[in-house]
Amino acid sequence: MQKHKLAIIGMGNVGSAVLVQAVAQQLAAEIVCIDIDGKKAHGEALDMTHATPAACSPDVKVYSGGFDECKDADVIICAGGPSILPDEKLDRLILAERNIKVISGIMKEVTSYTRDAVFIMITNPLDVTTYLAATRFDYAPGKLFGTGTTLETLRFKRIIANHYNINAKDVQGFMLGEHGNSAFPAWSTVSIGGVRLDALDKYYDYSEPFDKEKIADTVVKTAYDVLLSKGWTNTGIAMGACYLAKSVFLNIRCVTPVSAPLDGEYGLSDVALSLPSIIGENGVDKRLAIQIPDSELEALHRSAQSIKEVLKINALI
Amino acid sequence: MQKHKLAIIGMGNVGSAVLVQAVAQQLAAEIVCIDIDGKKAHGEALDMTHATPAACSPDVKVYSGGFDECKDADVIICAGGPSILPDEKLDRLILAERNIKVISGIMKEVTSYTRDAVFIMITNPLDVTTYLAATRFDYAPGKLFGTGTTLETLRFKRIIANHYNINAKDVQGFMLGEHGNSAFPAWSTVSIGGVRLDALDKYYDYSEPFDKEKIADTVVKTAYDVLLSKGWTNTGIAMGACYLAKSVFLNIRCVTPVSAPLDGEYGLSDVALSLPSIIGENGVDKRLAIQIPDSELEALHRSAQSIKEVLKINALI
Amino acid sequence: MQKHKLAIIGMGNVGSAVLVQAVAQQLAAEIVCIDIDGKKAHGEALDMTHATPAACSPDVKVYSGGFDECKDADVIICAGGPSILPDEKLDRLILAERNIKVISGIMKEVTSYTRDAVFIMITNPLDVTTYLAATRFDYAPGKLFGTGTTLETLRFKRIIANHYNINAKDVQGFMLGEHGNSAFPAWSTVSIGGVRLDALDKYYDYSEPFDKEKIADTVVKTAYDVLLSKGWTNTGIAMGACYLAKSVFLNIRCVTPVSAPLDGEYGLSDVALSLPSIIGENGVDKRLAIQIPDSELEALHRSAQSIKEVLKINALI
Amino acid sequence: MQKHKLAIIGMGNVGSAVLVQAVAQQLAAEIVCIDIDGKKAHGEALDMTHATPAACSPDVKVYSGGFDECKDADVIICAGGPSILPDEKLDRLILAERNIKVISGIMKEVTSYTRDAVFIMITNPLDVTTYLAATRFDYAPGKLFGTGTTLETLRFKRIIANHYNINAKDVQGFMLGEHGNSAFPAWSTVSIGGVRLDALDKYYDYSEPFDKEKIADTVVKTAYDVLLSKGWTNTGIAMGACYLAKSVFLNIRCVTPVSAPLDGEYGLSDVALSLPSIIGENGVDKRLAIQIPDSELEALHRSAQSIKEVLKINALI
Repeated sequence: MQKHKLAIIGMGNVGSAVLVQAVAQQLAAEIVCIDIDGKKAHGEALDMTHATPAACSPDVKVYSGGFDECKDADVIICAGGPSILPDEKLDRLILAERNIKVISGIMKEVTSYTRDAVFIMITNPLDVTTYLAATRFDYAPGKLFGTGTTLETLRFKRIIANHYNINAKDVQGFMLGEHGNSAFPAWSTVSIGGVRLDALDKYYDYSEPFDKEKIADTVVKTAYDVLLSKGWTNTGIAMGACYLAKSVFLNIRCVTPVSAPLDGEYGLSDVALSLPSIIGENGVDKRLAIQIPDSELEALHRSAQSIKEVLKINALI
Repeated sequence: MQKHKLAIIGMGNVGSAVLVQAVAQQLAAEIVCIDIDGKKAHGEALDMTHATPAACSPDVKVYSGGFDECKDADVIICAGGPSILPDEKLDRLILAERNIKVISGIMKEVTSYTRDAVFIMITNPLDVTTYLAATRFDYAPGKLFGTGTTLETLRFKRIIANHYNINAKDVQGFMLGEHGNSAFPAWSTVSIGGVRLDALDKYYDYSEPFDKEKIADTVVKTAYDVLLSKGWTNTGIAMGACYLAKSVFLNIRCVTPVSAPLDGEYGLSDVALSLPSIIGENGVDKRLAIQIPDSELEALHRSAQSIKEVLKINALI
Repeated sequence: MQKHKLAIIGMGNVGSAVLVQAVAQQLAAEIVCIDIDGKKAHGEALDMTHATPAACSPDVKVYSGGFDECKDADVIICAGGPSILPDEKLDRLILAERNIKVISGIMKEVTSYTRDAVFIMITNPLDVTTYLAATRFDYAPGKLFGTGTTLETLRFKRIIANHYNINAKDVQGFMLGEHGNSAFPAWSTVSIGGVRLDALDKYYDYSEPFDKEKIADTVVKTAYDVLLSKGWTNTGIAMGACYLAKSVFLNIRCVTPVSAPLDGEYGLSDVALSLPSIIGENGVDKRLAIQIPDSELEALHRSAQSIKEVLKINALI
Repeated sequence: MQKHKLAIIGMGNVGSAVLVQAVAQQLAAEIVCIDIDGKKAHGEALDMTHATPAACSPDVKVYSGGFDECKDADVIICAGGPSILPDEKLDRLILAERNIKVISGIMKEVTSYTRDAVFIMITNPLDVTTYLAATRFDYAPGKLFGTGTTLETLRFKRIIANHYNINAKDVQGFMLGEHGNSAFPAWSTVSIGGVRLDALDKYYDYSEPFDKEKIADTVVKTAYDVLLSKGWTNTGIAMGACYLAKSVFLNIRCVTPVSAPLDGEYGLSDVALSLPSIIGENGVDKRLAIQIPDSELEALHRSAQSIKEVLKINALI
C-alpha cells in the first residue's frame, strides 16, 4: 500500500486555504506544509492537525517540513510567492519579477528531490510562472501545469447561474487565455441544460437582460472585488486547485481549462495559457484546441500577446 | 430548528438502495422506512442503523414505521410495488395494472397524512404511476414528480464518457420521454467540455466510431443487461432519486429531466413524461420545453403515444 | 420544505474559516455572512460562492447581509470581535472589555430579529461572552452556548494520539473549565480503545514517557504556538464550531464539553464554563456534572474563579 | 502517481453493499468486482458505474473482472461464499464446510497474483475463514485479517446509544471473541463521554433499567433479527469492512476489534478471533491483549473454544 501524499508549498492565504480544502476533500493520507517561513508552515499545520480529531473531520495526517518532503509526494500544489496587495496595480502581471525569482528557487529545490510528482502551480502571474517552471526544469510535459482560468471559469459559471437562478454546476462553458486581465469567455462553449447561449433567455427566468460584455468584465473584475473587499483571494482558487489535484489522485479525466505551454495550437507557441484540457493521473493528458469563432480567436491571441510581453521582458522567451 | 426528515416507501431492492445512498449523502436528520411488509422495513432500518455508529458513517437516525410517519416528512421517495422479474417481458409498461393498484393505495395513505412533502416517484411504469399520483390526489403541481429519464440520462453520460475515455460529469446531454423502451437521446443537447456532438471525434480519443443508434439502443437495453445479470436494478436509480431529493433539501435548482404531467408542451397533455426541469425546494419549479429538431420531436411524440396507450387501457385518461 | 439556514457573524479569520468548513460539511442550504464591516462579509461570501461551482464542492448558497438575515436562521455562529494580537498578553481574558461591548451590540441586534435560532458563541474571552449573551438577552436556557473547551479537547486528543501514534478519534477524554489558560484535563475521563489512562503505556507504543503535566501545559500553550506562528488561530476552532452546529442541525446528541452558565453544578453558579454536555436540535440538552476526583474539582474551581473575576470586574455578576 | 485500487471478491448481498459503500466513501480510484458468477459481477459493476455520473456521486471507476485483477490491488475485501439462509440454523459456524472450500479456492487464485494487497475477510464463519486464509497461504502476518466483531461492536454501540438517547459515536466499548454466537461484550471497556459503565445511569437519561445480559444477548441476536426480517444482513457489515479498508488506505491507525490468528495472547493460539487491534497501512499493526476481568476472560476462552472445535472438525488445527 502506497499511501497518497500531497505537498503544499507556500502557506500564505492561498496555501492555507488549499490545506483546509485538501483535508475537507481527504485528497491524501498525508499532507505536508512547506514554506520558506518555517514558522508559518508550522502554525498552519498545527492548527489543521488540531481540527482533525473532530468527529466531523476527515482523517488526514498533516505536518510541516522542508522541501525534502517533496521526495515522495504524489502531487505538489505551489502557492508560494506574494500576491497583489490591495494598494497595488490591479494586474497580476506586475508580480512577474519577484515571483519569477520565488518560483525559480522553489523549482530548484523541488526538482532536486523529485520530478515524479504532478505539480500544480497557483502562483501569479500564473501563466508566466507556469511557463517558467514547465520549460526550465526538465519536468515531463503535462506533469506540471497551472490552475489558469479554472478560477475565472468557476466565477463565470456562478455569475451566469445567478443570472438565471439555476445551479452553477449545470452551466457548461469556459473562460480561456490568461489567468488575469485578458482572460475571455469562450461564449461558443456555453450551454445550460443542453440549451445554447442564444436560447437561454427563452427557457430560464431572469430579471435583467443578459449582457455578454458586462458578464465578461464582471468575471475578470471580481478578482479585484474580492481582493479589495477582504484583502486577498483564496477560497475560490483553493477549491479549483484541489479539484485539479483530486482529478490527478483519482484519474478523473475531467475537461477543464488549465495553463500549460502551447505547442503550436492556434499557431501559438513560446507561451503558456489556458485551454480546455483533460486532467488525469499524469496531469494534463491532452490539450483541446477546440474550434472557436474568430472573435474568440482574436481574444486568445491578444491574451497570448499580453503574456508573451511579460515573458520577454523577463527574458523567459 | 426544524430537523429534516425523509420517508422512503417500499423497502425492496430499490428502496433499500435509496436508504443506503440517502444516509451516505446525509440527506436528512431522520429517515423513516415504510413498507406494507413491516418486517422488511424493520430489517432494513435495523441493518442501516447498525452501520451508523462507524466512524466513517454520516450521522442519521434511521427507523421504520407506518404511513403516519409521512406526516412531518419533508421529502417522500416512493419505490413501492414490484419490478419486472428476470423472466418477464422486458417492458416496464407490463407493470401498469398491478402498480396502479399499489400506488393508488400508497397515495391514499400518504395524502391522508400530508400533501406538504415533496414526493418523488420511482415505481414503474414510472410515467404511468407519476401521472396517476400527480393528477388524482390533489397534490400541488410540481410537488410530485417521477425520476423519469434521470437514470437513462446517467447511463447515457456514462456510455458516452466511456467511449471518449473522459469524466462522465463533463458530458452534458439528456435522454427524454418515457422512462422505458421509448426513451430517446436528445442529441441536440449533447456536448462535452463545450464541444458539440458533431465535433467530439475531432478532440476526444476513441477506439471505434461513434454510432448514435447503437448508443441510444445500449442506453435503453442496459436496464435489461443489469436486470438479467444481477436480477434487479437499484444502484443507479437510487443515486438518481437521492440527487433529486438533495436538490429539494438544498434548493439546488439543478436542470435535469424528470417526469411530470404535461400541460400543452409540444402540443402534449394528458400524459406524464420526462422533460428537462428545474428542481428546487418545492419540487419541479419549471419544465423546459426546449427547442429540439424534428427527429427528436417525433421520438417524443412516439414516446408520449406509448405511455398514453397504457394510461387509456387503465382508464387513467 | 423548510430550507436550513446558517448565519455567521464576524467574518475575520475565524468567521471566514467557519464559512469554508460549513460549506465543506454542507451544514445548511444557505449561509449568510454578517459583519459590521460589510465589505469584509461581501468579499468572503463572494470568494466562497465562486468556489461552489466546482464539481468537488458541496452545493450551498452563500451570500452576505445585515443582522436582519438572522430572522429565519436556524443556527447562528458568532465569531465577532477582535482576538489576541501576536504582540499582546497571551491571555484571552484581556479581551473582555472590548468584546463585552462587541457582543452586547451583536446580541441586541440578533435578538431584535430572533431568539429561535440556536446560538453558538466563539468570541473570546469565551466564557465571559457566553455568560453575558446567555443571561442578559432572554435567550432560552441551553439555546445559546459557547464552543468552550471544544478546541482544547481536540488538541488534547491530537497530542495524546500523536504520543501513542494512534487515531485521534479513538482517544476519549475532555479538557474542562475555562476556554483559556485555566482549562484543565479531566484525566479521569481519558481512555483509548477501552484502555484507561494508567494502562495506556502497557499497550500502546511511545518514544518518551507520558508526562501529564507537560501534556496539560502543551494543550493550553498550543493556542499561543499557533497564534505566534501564523498570526491567529482559526482552523481548529472553526472545525469545532461546525461540529457543534452539525450536532444541532442533525440532532446528533453528541457528548462534548461546551460552555454555558452553571446552575449549581459542583456548587458553582454565576459563571459559565465548559462541562461535558449533550448537544442536539435545541442546543445544550443536558450538562453532565460527572464525578471527578478532588484534584480535577480543584482545577475546576480555580478555573471558575478566574472567569468570575473577569465577570466581576466587568460588572456582569 | 500510483492510483489506489480496491478489489471486491464475491458480489452477493454483502459484496454489492461493500461496493456501494466503497464508492460513497471514495475509497479508491478504481474498484474491480470479482465473482465466480461473472454475470453477477458484471451486473453490479454496471449498475454502480451508471450511478457515478450523478453530480452527487463521488468519482470512482468501477468495473468487473477476473482474479487477475487482484494483481495490482492495494486492498482486497472478500465476501465470497454463501451466508446463512433464513431457514437454516442460526449459527454462522454451520457454514464452515462449504465456505472453507470457497475460501481455499479464492485464496489460491488471489495468491497466484499477489500477496501485497491488504486482505480483509468478511466470509463466514469469519474466524474460521480468517484462520484458514491467514495461515495456509503465506500471507504476511497482519496483512490478512477478518472484520470479526466489528459488526457486533457497531451494534453494541447503537444499542447502548439508543438506551441513553445519545450519539452512538460517543460510546466507547467493544464486543470481542468470535464473530458469531459466542461474541461477548468487554464491559470493562465501556464508557460514554468519559463516564464508565457503572455511573452511566447517573448522568444519562433512560426509560428502562440497563440490563447487561439482555444487551449482550440483543447484540448477538440482532444478526438474526435482521436476517429473518430482510432475508440477509449486509448494510452494517459493509460499513464496517469499508471503515477497515479506509483505515488501510489512509493509515488511520484506528483501534478496533478485528479477527486474526492469536499468538499466545491470553494463553491462546491455533485460533483466530477478535481482539482490539491497531489498523494501518499494513493491516493489523498490533493486537492489544488488554487486561480484562475474569468474567470476560472466561467468555473469551469459551469463544475461542467454540471456534477451535470447528477448526478441528475441519482439520485446520
